[in-house]
Amino acid sequence: MKELRVGLENVAIAESTISSVNGEKGELIYRGEFVENLTQGHTYEDIVYLLWYGHLPLASEKADFVAKLVSKRKLSAELKQLIQALPKQITPMAMLRTVISAITVPGDNWPPTYDQAIEILAKAPTILTYHHNLIHGLPEREPNPELSHAANYLYMLHGTTPTIVDISALDAYWMLSADHDMNASTFTARVVTSTQADFISAIVGAISALIGPLHGGTPSFVDDMLDQIGTEANVEPWLRSQLEQDKRLMGFGHRVYKVYDPRAAALKEIIKQHADQDKFLNLSLVVEKVAIELLKAFKPGKNLYPNLEFWASGIFRTIKMPKDLYTPTFCLSRIGGWSAHILEQAANNRLIRPSCIYVGPKPKGNPPPKPTET
Amino acid sequence: MKELRVGLENVAIAESTISSVNGEKGELIYRGEFVENLTQGHTYEDIVYLLWYGHLPLASEKADFVAKLVSKRKLSAELKQLIQALPKQITPMAMLRTVISAITVPGDNWPPTYDQAIEILAKAPTILTYHHNLIHGLPEREPNPELSHAANYLYMLHGTTPTIVDISALDAYWMLSADHDMNASTFTARVVTSTQADFISAIVGAISALIGPLHGGTPSFVDDMLDQIGTEANVEPWLRSQLEQDKRLMGFGHRVYKVYDPRAAALKEIIKQHADQDKFLNLSLVVEKVAIELLKAFKPGKNLYPNLEFWASGIFRTIKMPKDLYTPTFCLSRIGGWSAHILEQAANNRLIRPSCIYVGPKPKGNPPPKPTET
Repeated sequence: MKELRVGLENVAIAESTISSVNGEKGELIYRGEFVENLTQGHTYEDIVYLLWYGHLPLASEKADFVAKLVSKRKLSAELKQLIQALPKQITPMAMLRTVISAITVPGDNWPPTYDQAIEILAKAPTILTYHHNLIHGLPEREPNPELSHAANYLYMLHGTTPTIVDISALDAYWMLSADHDMNASTFTARVVTSTQADFISAIVGAISALIGPLHGGTPSFVDDMLDQIGTEANVEPWLRSQLEQDKRLMGFGHRVYKVYDPRAAALKEIIKQHADQDKFLNLSLVVEKVAIELLKAFKPGKNLYPNLEFWASGIFRTIKMPKDLYTPTFCLSRIGGWSAHILEQAANNRLIRPSCIYVGPKPKGNPPPKPTET
Repeated sequence: MKELRVGLENVAIAESTISSVNGEKGELIYRGEFVENLTQGHTYEDIVYLLWYGHLPLASEKADFVAKLVSKRKLSAELKQLIQALPKQITPMAMLRTVISAITVPGDNWPPTYDQAIEILAKAPTILTYHHNLIHGLPEREPNPELSHAANYLYMLHGTTPTIVDISALDAYWMLSADHDMNASTFTARVVTSTQADFISAIVGAISALIGPLHGGTPSFVDDMLDQIGTEANVEPWLRSQLEQDKRLMGFGHRVYKVYDPRAAALKEIIKQHADQDKFLNLSLVVEKVAIELLKAFKPGKNLYPNLEFWASGIFRTIKMPKDLYTPTFCLSRIGGWSAHILEQAANNRLIRPSCIYVGPKPKGNPPPKPTET
């Protein structure tokens, strides 16, 4: 009667109206919009609104949504005190999770609400930058209510008003990575929600899953690869040598996409616009071209293309993101998508409770009789 | 190609040698042992050893295991400082999760190890009682290395050496609730582990799922019910009135068990031994008897029997557990089972990544051409 489905491939755990991935065609849709068509003329806030409410906001809706977000950015003295008391060696991801875990959001534990989602979406960048500045001896920077979600994050991080180019680059990255149907962290958020746990618990579960490199990835490994390659002349011999040793090329291939990842394609367009001013970005374009050709020869039929992480590396360098904040910055975008899924799960909830097939030793002896049999 | 399996009923996500639930027969097996046959003559440590290593420990194995656990009970000054800095209104479950989230365990992030599991199993009761005593103005009580896991927990909580009766009651409860195959929190731990996240992340995810009342339950609701009933004479009219109003009886029924829950049956045996000395325990025996009869009449064919929570209420009263620590005390036992599943998942890992069926609006327009098509 039980069916073994390790990895749960092709097992759908919900009907969802939020996003859709087609790995064969290389398509990602948010609420009926191809994701590549959304990055022009929108900000991350628009896309979160779309994911949460099902349509892009009218001007008045956006003003209201942004105002709510801006009003929730500041950390209480209590949360700052908690951050100051954290163990010294804590990683930024564990730090973000720990602080969110301690937050009490307004309203009841069940069902989760939009206001609770706004609270966490708004505060998460402040938590990250407050801790980053604290441990690096940098000045504390209060959120700037005049700036957008992306601009304010860069401002709190660097202490200067970011350029339009930097803001657009981060906005594009965040918009493209905000949701990706039933990935492991989103799924974790929905499993936790299915027990009628509160919004915070669902987010904390999701962050825990995103910490795993098979999911949250290791975006700074792409940087390391590009650093090791160093020059255009070295691209072909370096990549060939890796493949001859049967080593993985960082930033290539995706479990779902069998053609070019649409998010990677959209980021590549941005990288191309800036490549002539930046040796590193230019190098990544060369690496992509040569790697695709070599992968066709070394891994025929595998259809390996650059993934989101490959081009994210260039975006992160452009906006001067510290390497230890690459995965946390990815996490910030995903809070938008997780929130949409938590709210959708709660609206039509059913406990997610699979089983396992017991293959351990057969039971010895007999159990005692049931109370109802005595 | 995708198959919709909301709730994942009868979908097995792993072959497991750890535990097995048979809801039709009302059986729970740990590593080839009927759980009811384990509670006599063993302690919680024996059962954790069984779940982790596949056999009950020899005397020397147990001595070694207990010594390791005892050596890890104390909290560092850093962790105590963190607990002191937590927001005042945090719940004990969120508190436990937050503090564990901030711990850095020895060893690498991947794969998880037995030593990491020992670290968290040993420290969790100390975290709970340190915080409890702190917020209630009670003296700080360092762990007592002479006492077992159960005895030490009661000692740190109450400040007095617990009686054999109390220790056995808690040990029995913990042994019976240590594992329950692929429940929602254990499943969450395995999903998080499947991303190659670290041991702490898996435990933090599991605690988040256990916070949900559909899983971690609301054991103190059974207390409230018994308090409301008050006297033996009131049992029948009170229960009948609830059922006539189509209200749920707290502590009856289980998603999996269609006959008497074997854990509940084993706890009932313990309650029976003490019922003549305690009006409350005696009342719970009467409530059980009358409720089973009434449920047969009001919900024919539903097979509703008392569950683990029903009798846990009596155990908690016996050992003077504060009501806000009922679910956290359940959580302490489950850390043993979660750890076994995390280690098993890691030993034969595959990313758990289901999908969803997109039922949102059809995409408008066309996506841009792929970089590889241009």
